[in-house]
Amino acid sequence: MSANSFGKLLTVTTFGESHGPAIGCVIDGCPPGLAISPEEFSADLQRRATGRSRHTSQRRELDEVEILSGVYEGLTTGTPIALLIRNTDQRSKDYSNIAAQFRPGHADYAYWHKYGIRDPRGGGRSSARETTMRVAAGVIAKKWLAQRYGVSVRGYLSQLGPHRPAGFDWSAVEDNPFFWPDAAQVGELETYMDALRKSGDSVGARVDVVADGVPAGWGEPIYGKLSAELASALMSINAVKGVEIGDGFDSAAQLGTEHRDLITPAGFASNHAGGILGGIATGQPIRVSLALKPTSSLRLPGESVDTAGNSIQVVTTGRHDPCVGIRATPIAEAMVALVLMDQALRHRAQCGDVGAVAPQIPGRIDG
Amino acid sequence: MSANSFGKLLTVTTFGESHGPAIGCVIDGCPPGLAISPEEFSADLQRRATGRSRHTSQRRELDEVEILSGVYEGLTTGTPIALLIRNTDQRSKDYSNIAAQFRPGHADYAYWHKYGIRDPRGGGRSSARETTMRVAAGVIAKKWLAQRYGVSVRGYLSQLGPHRPAGFDWSAVEDNPFFWPDAAQVGELETYMDALRKSGDSVGARVDVVADGVPAGWGEPIYGKLSAELASALMSINAVKGVEIGDGFDSAAQLGTEHRDLITPAGFASNHAGGILGGIATGQPIRVSLALKPTSSLRLPGESVDTAGNSIQVVTTGRHDPCVGIRATPIAEAMVALVLMDQALRHRAQCGDVGAVAPQIPGRIDG
Amino acid sequence: MSANSFGKLLTVTTFGESHGPAIGCVIDGCPPGLAISPEEFSADLQRRATGRSRHTSQRRELDEVEILSGVYEGLTTGTPIALLIRNTDQRSKDYSNIAAQFRPGHADYAYWHKYGIRDPRGGGRSSARETTMRVAAGVIAKKWLAQRYGVSVRGYLSQLGPHRPAGFDWSAVEDNPFFWPDAAQVGELETYMDALRKSGDSVGARVDVVADGVPAGWGEPIYGKLSAELASALMSINAVKGVEIGDGFDSAAQLGTEHRDLITPAGFASNHAGGILGGIATGQPIRVSLALKPTSSLRLPGESVDTAGNSIQVVTTGRHDPCVGIRATPIAEAMVALVLMDQALRHRAQCGDVGAVAPQIPGRIDG
Amino acid sequence: MSANSFGKLLTVTTFGESHGPAIGCVIDGCPPGLAISPEEFSADLQRRATGRSRHTSQRRELDEVEILSGVYEGLTTGTPIALLIRNTDQRSKDYSNIAAQFRPGHADYAYWHKYGIRDPRGGGRSSARETTMRVAAGVIAKKWLAQRYGVSVRGYLSQLGPHRPAGFDWSAVEDNPFFWPDAAQVGELETYMDALRKSGDSVGARVDVVADGVPAGWGEPIYGKLSAELASALMSINAVKGVEIGDGFDSAAQLGTEHRDLITPAGFASNHAGGILGGIATGQPIRVSLALKPTSSLRLPGESVDTAGNSIQVVTTGRHDPCVGIRATPIAEAMVALVLMDQALRHRAQCGDVGAVAPQIPGRIDG
Repeated sequence: MSANSFGKLLTVTTFGESHGPAIGCVIDGCPPGLAISPEEFSADLQRRATGRSRHTSQRRELDEVEILSGVYEGLTTGTPIALLIRNTDQRSKDYSNIAAQFRPGHADYAYWHKYGIRDPRGGGRSSARETTMRVAAGVIAKKWLAQRYGVSVRGYLSQLGPHRPAGFDWSAVEDNPFFWPDAAQVGELETYMDALRKSGDSVGARVDVVADGVPAGWGEPIYGKLSAELASALMSINAVKGVEIGDGFDSAAQLGTEHRDLITPAGFASNHAGGILGGIATGQPIRVSLALKPTSSLRLPGESVDTAGNSIQVVTTGRHDPCVGIRATPIAEAMVALVLMDQALRHRAQCGDVGAVAPQIPGRIDG
Repeated sequence: MSANSFGKLLTVTTFGESHGPAIGCVIDGCPPGLAISPEEFSADLQRRATGRSRHTSQRRELDEVEILSGVYEGLTTGTPIALLIRNTDQRSKDYSNIAAQFRPGHADYAYWHKYGIRDPRGGGRSSARETTMRVAAGVIAKKWLAQRYGVSVRGYLSQLGPHRPAGFDWSAVEDNPFFWPDAAQVGELETYMDALRKSGDSVGARVDVVADGVPAGWGEPIYGKLSAELASALMSINAVKGVEIGDGFDSAAQLGTEHRDLITPAGFASNHAGGILGGIATGQPIRVSLALKPTSSLRLPGESVDTAGNSIQVVTTGRHDPCVGIRATPIAEAMVALVLMDQALRHRAQCGDVGAVAPQIPGRIDG
Repeated sequence: MSANSFGKLLTVTTFGESHGPAIGCVIDGCPPGLAISPEEFSADLQRRATGRSRHTSQRRELDEVEILSGVYEGLTTGTPIALLIRNTDQRSKDYSNIAAQFRPGHADYAYWHKYGIRDPRGGGRSSARETTMRVAAGVIAKKWLAQRYGVSVRGYLSQLGPHRPAGFDWSAVEDNPFFWPDAAQVGELETYMDALRKSGDSVGARVDVVADGVPAGWGEPIYGKLSAELASALMSINAVKGVEIGDGFDSAAQLGTEHRDLITPAGFASNHAGGILGGIATGQPIRVSLALKPTSSLRLPGESVDTAGNSIQVVTTGRHDPCVGIRATPIAEAMVALVLMDQALRHRAQCGDVGAVAPQIPGRIDG
Repeated sequence: MSANSFGKLLTVTTFGESHGPAIGCVIDGCPPGLAISPEEFSADLQRRATGRSRHTSQRRELDEVEILSGVYEGLTTGTPIALLIRNTDQRSKDYSNIAAQFRPGHADYAYWHKYGIRDPRGGGRSSARETTMRVAAGVIAKKWLAQRYGVSVRGYLSQLGPHRPAGFDWSAVEDNPFFWPDAAQVGELETYMDALRKSGDSVGARVDVVADGVPAGWGEPIYGKLSAELASALMSINAVKGVEIGDGFDSAAQLGTEHRDLITPAGFASNHAGGILGGIATGQPIRVSLALKPTSSLRLPGESVDTAGNSIQVVTTGRHDPCVGIRATPIAEAMVALVLMDQALRHRAQCGDVGAVAPQIPGRIDG
């Protein structure tokens, strides 16, 4: 498996640098017969896009997805689906200065030591620009999961620096620029973010994702655990430093009688497990959380070295997110959806098809 | 990749059920010329073994590893190394009762819904017995990493229910049954565990692992990130519900100026990143944490259902760990070592060999 | 994927050296609910075994398969199936002489240059002894294919040195030690082989395998073509130097009007394609052929070098097959069956389940 | 591994349909520091292109490769290299007729039965148009192999229907439209092809590829054999029905004393093995052959059925190659080069780097 590919049976391969000619992906393994159009990518891409509010980077990503292959007359054909987005708003400037400097906390230091060469423009391959294609691929996974198995995948911001939601309402999440589940706190968050942006600093965040309707049995044992695949998928998102399933780190302080979810003939009485036992779905909602560090691209100077090892002070100019966690919500949803679709395909390979609510191509096969 | 296999270039495949005839593994991709003997597995297997103190399961695992292949005259040959351990202390009893019941919080519920059939004896394939082979495989990875690159991998218990280490001393870790880094607290922990065991309940825990000496550049970008592979590896361990790299979930509350690790000509000034930026090692120590839930095998009754959907009360008898997190320390170390060795091999495939401190087979090749 | 593993969704990993303690395999991905017992391996293992007639090696392989995992109360559970065979008839002798010599045409030369170290006893890992486990794994694949999809896989010897079958009758194949489809020629072949064995020389052979009942649609496009996977599987068998699908190399001399298989409402009018078009099964019988070179283990001296580069004369003593192709028939069948089962699982993952003649576990899932 | 991806460490993923907007590929795993420019693809793409002579399809492929990622200032960066070619000369026409018909011998029958849906324009995904991207990816592999290890990969047409080369001269191969190694026969071939084209029929062919300079030790044992990977790679090319290594099917009639390559202190005395023993390179030239069937796209009517099962007569109009084997030479070279580069990377992962003639990035790493 290439490092730029994700998934075993639904395989997504992404390519592209932040300021190169284009970014794109190849999605292989999608069942035939799924209706998909270029316009369907817009909604989620807009949720992830910069430039939507003053609280994210002001780079304007007017991303239009071109479908290069795998779709014929509006239906997937079972062959690889290639998606392409041209990079349009990359500003040309002189990168020779940046190219020889390492931002503290930025991937450029590690890329340099790995490859001995890197594209310094806008972070090159290590830029969060890559996650655009994750969201695009996730659109396909979300649609297939919903149509075929009635599974929904939704996320929200569950922490923004020192702030935590006081209340919870799914309907609030999409009505503010923070994916915040408590409408009453939005003003407070805007004030906080305005001050932060002004200070030149950045801040971390936490995102929660919930998948409803996942049939019991999806997931694999041992190294292919649903939990392990989710952990890998979420940790692969830029800036993520932690992943939890269900009660996560709180489990370390719990007693067995507190943590275990009792089962009644009507179903589970609680969901500390986050919907996964032994790596396999229980039929409860899947609950995952991820922690994102504050971005390293700050306007406040920091001590560092250049490629020659000399001491320097680094200041990052340009258009950056003061909190990359905000826009991570649709990315995390996409990764969860991609993991679930991959596990759904694996499950029906080995164990047959359970839980389907609709056939793929009516009247012929049950893909 | 099969669900029972782990790693891309150093591939470990495990097999075996808790109360079947044997457990074992096949390790493929190990470079030739590494000296290895059956005895070398004993130390780490003993660290993981049950029956070492009254604080773990009283099943006595007198595990002796038989090397079935891949080693000739004491040296690895480059062909697959198969290791076998016969199961000896599985008690024969009537499992027909357990076979039709689901323990709340146990994998048997999920396995049943996945496969429609399962080996109920001692948890079958979902038993932590499987992790014995991870530790065995980890012995090889640890030795190779140490000899070839000077890398060490060490772990300790960083939380036991409500308890956290007050002090820290590596030298204390191996001198108590809890892998606890503060010798002064050991008495307190013993008292706590004695009471817990008596109560019939169980408790969660947290383990930290540190890898020193990892060369900058190991790890891959995007989906093959070192952090993502570590997250997958650690989340694949039984009972794990959370994984952190470096500051982990604390990052969500940090400012960029707090989190970023400044760089001086003499090296990094801090290690909030846990040694990984952009998914690639920076040359700092790799720091990871994992949270383990309390085991679901309790002597305290819990509400559940049987396979026919009837309401039942489940009580688990038999020999179980009141805190599975205690014995997880060597398992977590093994998984970290396996990830690092795999990434080392990947790195030298693409980028050539850096950081080696010793040749594999002196005088001939640089494996 | 490790080099000692085969298959994407049905993954077989083998281990073991010719004269080591044991050989074995781990089969992962088999659907749950398949009935299997140790005795079922005997028939095919006997077909492959040495010592059955004077025309094969006189090493007596009294191979008994031990099932170490993955089967509970006679049914597969969906977890990895590990099979073990102890090596019993390896003669102890002094290998120090052989260890420093390269047999012309033998893998030991290449292994030495790859690894710088090798197990010289009986060819070590490069011995055809490894193929025993392929046959064992193939037993499971054959049974599943037959029960679930009504697919049969059968092979025969289609060339033995200068000899070609004059007639063809499936029922003859299993009634002679050569898997020869024309009973009338068996005496002639025995005379030929007696003379060959006496001469100390060896000879090549050709094997044909036919799979009946494969549903149209199995196989994948481009790099996962059924034909490509068969080619890889068959070429991976020791001593194989050529693989054909359908008319194979004869196709190079054919006109399009000769080669194309016309289609009538009642089915195909011919089968030059060997049942595969564009890498995907057409519903016709799958026809493949493989060519095996004469073994390099001859009693006739040959010029070679030792590990120090000195000129030597090599004579191979010990018990060797004068024609390794004879015993290759069940091995080739096994590889074809493993490829087909793997492709069947892949097909139903992406496109749903078609062509099934029986459910896996009656009344519950359709694995 | 997705079915549209090839290679383990050097992974090529292709996408695109014959008459869709574009075809492309993503090449992942290429070491950093390799100089590459868009122009370098032209030579090999021209060798494969249609429209070069009257003996191939008259579709004019003026293919210009756009590098979308992975190359910065003319050097590979270690990140995925995406290549894109827009389809320009696809003629718009009404495909509704073709869409409901199956050409005898064409992949459309199998695709239909697999997916229940297909892009009928120009063969869609099953078109040989896909092989354009193999050739483009092969350009990178060839260059890296040459610069880094001094390996060259060259092919020629070794059979065209009834014709076989009378003489052999590498220098003739590139000087005629047939890649024919005997200049004296070119006129005869032209006459033959003119008559064939006029008749409306097609013909098969055979291609040979030779790789010089491959170091002893490349390749892996058992299922990862160099021979097995070559077989898979070559059989994955459209229309290929057979693959041979070294003497191939002739081996079936040979005696051991004929086939084995004797070794002298100065090297091997012959090369019946085709440079591979036990699946691993011996240091001799690698020799492979492939057989290509005659294309199924004929102007001569053939009996078939439509998607409703009715009997029809199919006549293929449009621009097709009378012998697809002619243009297969650069494709086969590309596949051999991709396999070798992948195996080179695998080898140095496990066994270290041997045989290198030049460092990748001078002065820093040995990639």
